[in-house]
Amino acid sequence: MEKQQLSPASGSRDFMPDDARFRDRVFATVKGVFAAHGFEPMETPAFERIETLSGKYGEEGDKLIFKILKRGDKEATGLADLALRYDLTVPAMRAYANNRNALPRIFKRYQIGPVWRADRPARGRFREFYQCDVDIIGSDARLADIEVLVTLADVLEALTLAGYRIRLNSRHVLKGMMTVYGVPDALSQNVTTVLDKFDKIGMDGVIAGLADLGLPEPAYDAMAADLAAPDFEERLRKRLADDDDGRLGLDEADEVVAHVATQLPNGTIEFDPILARGLDYYTGPIFEFTAPGGAGSIGGGGRYDNLAGMFLRDTVPVCGGSLGIERILMVLRDRETANPPARVDVYVTVWEPADAADALELARRLRAAGISAELDLAGGRIGKQMKAADNRRASVVLMRGPDEKAAGTVVLKHMTSGDQQTVAENDMVGVAQGLLDAQA
Amino acid sequence: MEKQQLSPASGSRDFMPDDARFRDRVFATVKGVFAAHGFEPMETPAFERIETLSGKYGEEGDKLIFKILKRGDKEATGLADLALRYDLTVPAMRAYANNRNALPRIFKRYQIGPVWRADRPARGRFREFYQCDVDIIGSDARLADIEVLVTLADVLEALTLAGYRIRLNSRHVLKGMMTVYGVPDALSQNVTTVLDKFDKIGMDGVIAGLADLGLPEPAYDAMAADLAAPDFEERLRKRLADDDDGRLGLDEADEVVAHVATQLPNGTIEFDPILARGLDYYTGPIFEFTAPGGAGSIGGGGRYDNLAGMFLRDTVPVCGGSLGIERILMVLRDRETANPPARVDVYVTVWEPADAADALELARRLRAAGISAELDLAGGRIGKQMKAADNRRASVVLMRGPDEKAAGTVVLKHMTSGDQQTVAENDMVGVAQGLLDAQA
Repeated sequence: MEKQQLSPASGSRDFMPDDARFRDRVFATVKGVFAAHGFEPMETPAFERIETLSGKYGEEGDKLIFKILKRGDKEATGLADLALRYDLTVPAMRAYANNRNALPRIFKRYQIGPVWRADRPARGRFREFYQCDVDIIGSDARLADIEVLVTLADVLEALTLAGYRIRLNSRHVLKGMMTVYGVPDALSQNVTTVLDKFDKIGMDGVIAGLADLGLPEPAYDAMAADLAAPDFEERLRKRLADDDDGRLGLDEADEVVAHVATQLPNGTIEFDPILARGLDYYTGPIFEFTAPGGAGSIGGGGRYDNLAGMFLRDTVPVCGGSLGIERILMVLRDRETANPPARVDVYVTVWEPADAADALELARRLRAAGISAELDLAGGRIGKQMKAADNRRASVVLMRGPDEKAAGTVVLKHMTSGDQQTVAENDMVGVAQGLLDAQA
Repeated sequence: MEKQQLSPASGSRDFMPDDARFRDRVFATVKGVFAAHGFEPMETPAFERIETLSGKYGEEGDKLIFKILKRGDKEATGLADLALRYDLTVPAMRAYANNRNALPRIFKRYQIGPVWRADRPARGRFREFYQCDVDIIGSDARLADIEVLVTLADVLEALTLAGYRIRLNSRHVLKGMMTVYGVPDALSQNVTTVLDKFDKIGMDGVIAGLADLGLPEPAYDAMAADLAAPDFEERLRKRLADDDDGRLGLDEADEVVAHVATQLPNGTIEFDPILARGLDYYTGPIFEFTAPGGAGSIGGGGRYDNLAGMFLRDTVPVCGGSLGIERILMVLRDRETANPPARVDVYVTVWEPADAADALELARRLRAAGISAELDLAGGRIGKQMKAADNRRASVVLMRGPDEKAAGTVVLKHMTSGDQQTVAENDMVGVAQGLLDAQA
């Protein structure tokens, strides 16, 4: 047989036990916080009909969708009918639309799962990666926007990712800006795109970018002067006070910021009038989370009241957010101590093959008490079995030779201290539990 | 915009909250039992290179693999380079081979996750479905086979699926049978296939099936006579005693059955000399789990010492098993009570919009104590909010009007009993916890 390639396909990853366990623990924390806020799990399949996904992510996004070839006789056509989900949001809106009558009028859903994008792989960028989403469907209350933000912040608190920062804006502020500076409709999308690059290119870069757009001179002059001024926010607020969208946007942003600020023990939130976020489906408050130490964006979201309408005859207000969990996992993983935790509580040695029944029974009793127990499969002398126990990072090793069996006892060895003690069979579970508790 | 199809793609499913939560709970139980037996999680991607999967599942299996179209410029070729995983075993062997040096010499892995097969959808048969696998890689000890069986049985015990039955055989028994009855090598695979159909066609059907194979007359006569006899097993054991494979197979099967039998509080295990299992990669003990009430096969597995060798230059002994978790989920789901559990512990009403900050703070305190709390987003009068709380199946509703706020108290209403009480703000968490505990 020819030699097969052993690495996972480009941009995808295998997770060996320590990593798999670590990710699982983080996802469990995320899930716990989502549930504590009354969000409910909703799951959608890995693949969707192509029509469900296409046209939802812009031209660039569409190119990155993994398409699945038709099957059977139709495989030879070379055509695709299904596609791997590109995000969790669009499939969730389709599933919501399909089950609307069975769901609460105000529905808070969460989903944690992989999505697939045929992006060029790079450090921290994968073709299969997890997203963690929350959405509140069916409420236009500002408290809904606030609750989404507090929920995502609580996840970061639970993961002890202190120092996170939230920047918040409203699409109404951006709309008002276009009016008060006199930006023509045809150019407002381009202006927004330039403003959105502030993080990467700085204020000088933004102003230079605006100069290239061919704005009317008064509009460019006023914007450039205000953006460059130290009191930019004050100037902008004064201008927006004269505009309906501007007033609504400021009111919305200020209320959300004020409430969320009271709920962030280890983070901050601030109004950022030039935060724009790429996706053009947002309609109200928008926000972005960043982590300390230059790890960049670790989450974002906002209100998008028109997306569900793609699958329904009417409009449904929705606000939601997503955590950049792969980046968060990288930050947390780098912080992990070098010593991974023990992988099994008690390693049960087998004195000789004929003792297998005895070993099975001892392991059963330990597991019944909630202690993980593993039987030696390496075989051989006790020294070899001890080495196997050490390789498995066992906390406690159980041994039982002919003398102990005759006396109705077992030997428990604590692997960290090296101490070993002979205990009556009936005390085995209690003593083992004590050794494990003392270590934890 | 044209009307979109809202159902999930054929053979795939959306899971609304009650189902998603139910599945999640079952998977958590499975994971807990696997870990208690010292199995460790290993994850592989959803897709693999086509070469990794093709040729591993027989001609029929190969046809059911979902293939992913090449991307970018190559999309127009209509060719595929990737494929969705068809099971968890083959990708696990690839990942093991790729990480062998970093893994323990005897490696116990588990994986719970979806696989995809382009099968014709039917009741209980899906194109996206979960598998729950355990494997012990690198041990040829009989205790390893025993441990796999005990682990899978413990899952059924933990899920309180009493009355399960394990049938066990060894491929060596089947090999011995071919020798002692004089079945030509060229026909032994066909004989095995016919024997494997016993469940569906009964003993008369098996004997008729053997008659159609064109076996030498003495071979057919002896097999047919033995199979039809009430003491078939006894006759077979006598014949196998004269054959090396036969003796090894009986010894292996008897030892595994004897040990496993002591570990099944609510199930049984028996030797079944005509159990064959379809996949021809098995090399030692093979087994199948069935559930009471005709639910059919709910799991199976065995020893397959040659599969890892497809990805490695040497042979690695492996034994493992898989639970038919979708069928188990159906059995358990049918048994569930009609009343789903409460979905949120405390529903925090908001007296009027200006009280949002107060409501946020009360919810925060409840969550900090591990109580799930949700803010009302329906708005309006308290009666409307109470109705929303009822729809959300809240256990307790928290109310606070101007009088309570002035007095530093809150009102807690227990939704099942209808009792409500006014308690000091500082006692809120304790009283709410008491109400929830009393209900649990």
